[in-house]
Amino acid sequence: MKAFNELGRKVQRFAKERDWAQFHSPKNLSMALSVECAELMEHFQWLTESQSRRLDRRRKRAVEKELADIQIYLIRISQVLGLDLIEASNGKLLENARKYPVAKARGSAKKYTELK
Amino acid sequence: MKAFNELGRKVQRFAKERDWAQFHSPKNLSMALSVECAELMEHFQWLTESQSRRLDRRRKRAVEKELADIQIYLIRISQVLGLDLIEASNGKLLENARKYPVAKARGSAKKYTELK
Amino acid sequence: MKAFNELGRKVQRFAKERDWAQFHSPKNLSMALSVECAELMEHFQWLTESQSRRLDRRRKRAVEKELADIQIYLIRISQVLGLDLIEASNGKLLENARKYPVAKARGSAKKYTELK
Amino acid sequence: MKAFNELGRKVQRFAKERDWAQFHSPKNLSMALSVECAELMEHFQWLTESQSRRLDRRRKRAVEKELADIQIYLIRISQVLGLDLIEASNGKLLENARKYPVAKARGSAKKYTELK
Repeated sequence: MKAFNELGRKVQRFAKERDWAQFHSPKNLSMALSVECAELMEHFQWLTESQSRRLDRRRKRAVEKELADIQIYLIRISQVLGLDLIEASNGKLLENARKYPVAKARGSAKKYTELK
Repeated sequence: MKAFNELGRKVQRFAKERDWAQFHSPKNLSMALSVECAELMEHFQWLTESQSRRLDRRRKRAVEKELADIQIYLIRISQVLGLDLIEASNGKLLENARKYPVAKARGSAKKYTELK
Repeated sequence: MKAFNELGRKVQRFAKERDWAQFHSPKNLSMALSVECAELMEHFQWLTESQSRRLDRRRKRAVEKELADIQIYLIRISQVLGLDLIEASNGKLLENARKYPVAKARGSAKKYTELK
Repeated sequence: MKAFNELGRKVQRFAKERDWAQFHSPKNLSMALSVECAELMEHFQWLTESQSRRLDRRRKRAVEKELADIQIYLIRISQVLGLDLIEASNGKLLENARKYPVAKARGSAKKYTELK
């Protein structure tokens, strides 16, 4: 995981150099994360699902930047909270496998609370 | 980056086993991402910034799951779009360094459009 | 506008009776608003646009509650900020008419910055 | 409720003149609503709660426009779904009063599921 850890170090250094820790309460970072997610969504709000699968180059580059913004804030908030994103994600996938067993969830978009 | 790539493979397999690609248009995934970000934010909406920095164990575990949900969807949407999250994030950090030079941005929360 | 003003008075009284003004900073209320919008979006994230136009009764009732939550928080944040929602909305519609003249915007989902 | 109904008629006419109904599926409108809520939130993400209560004139005008955008989309989605916002909000306030009885909820930001 050298590249992911290296990215994490860069994100931390970036904030430190700019003395931004004062603004980076988890509360504020959760807002920033949501704002970036909305900037991503804005690219798709008037597109059909089909159009969203066939983005032109310009739009794809713009979307790529939004994904990066989200990843960076996600790393930052996990740092401030002292949480390990990869470990948490692996754990959550296991939990999701229990909530959405293949036999019941296959081909269905139902929320787990509605699966028989 | 073995752990991050391994996580990516798990996320892809998870969706494939459940035949979920049909629901995973970038449009839909951007909505799912925003929904998870809001579930994260819900933990902080009535807390002060200070309280958000000192979460109790129970709350921290809940927040950790939301961060995982966001990371998983972020990986999934980047897969569907054929984009590399780490590469995109490194590129965006370089761009952010240009928008927020240390000399101007240090100690300030101003948006880059407002920095002199 | 008796019904809208009456709703506003109820919203204000509701918060006052519960001594909630302390939590109702505009910052917090903007978070609460976003959280409710995401709860609304969650109903649509895996539906096609077409399915979203033909909701069954149960789903429609659930969506109706989310719209109400959003309206209530919107009224509350405008109260705390001392702003008039109807007046602001009328003003914004005029501005939107300038940004999206019928001749240019008709049948197009383009953002105003991209209209010739 | 003349002013609110008049606003509703304007919102409907605005979309009709521009032949925008094709884009206004409830799914799309829920995304647009969330995007506007995030634009509102962006004004507050680095402010303290206290600062958010004392906005300067320029910022207040900007926030006012975001509130208007949210109100307009909220009216639009309720129109497309054939729902009455005022009626729904009054109903939801009654439900909220049951979930948050004054005796239990006074001075507390706890979610109703956590109130004794």
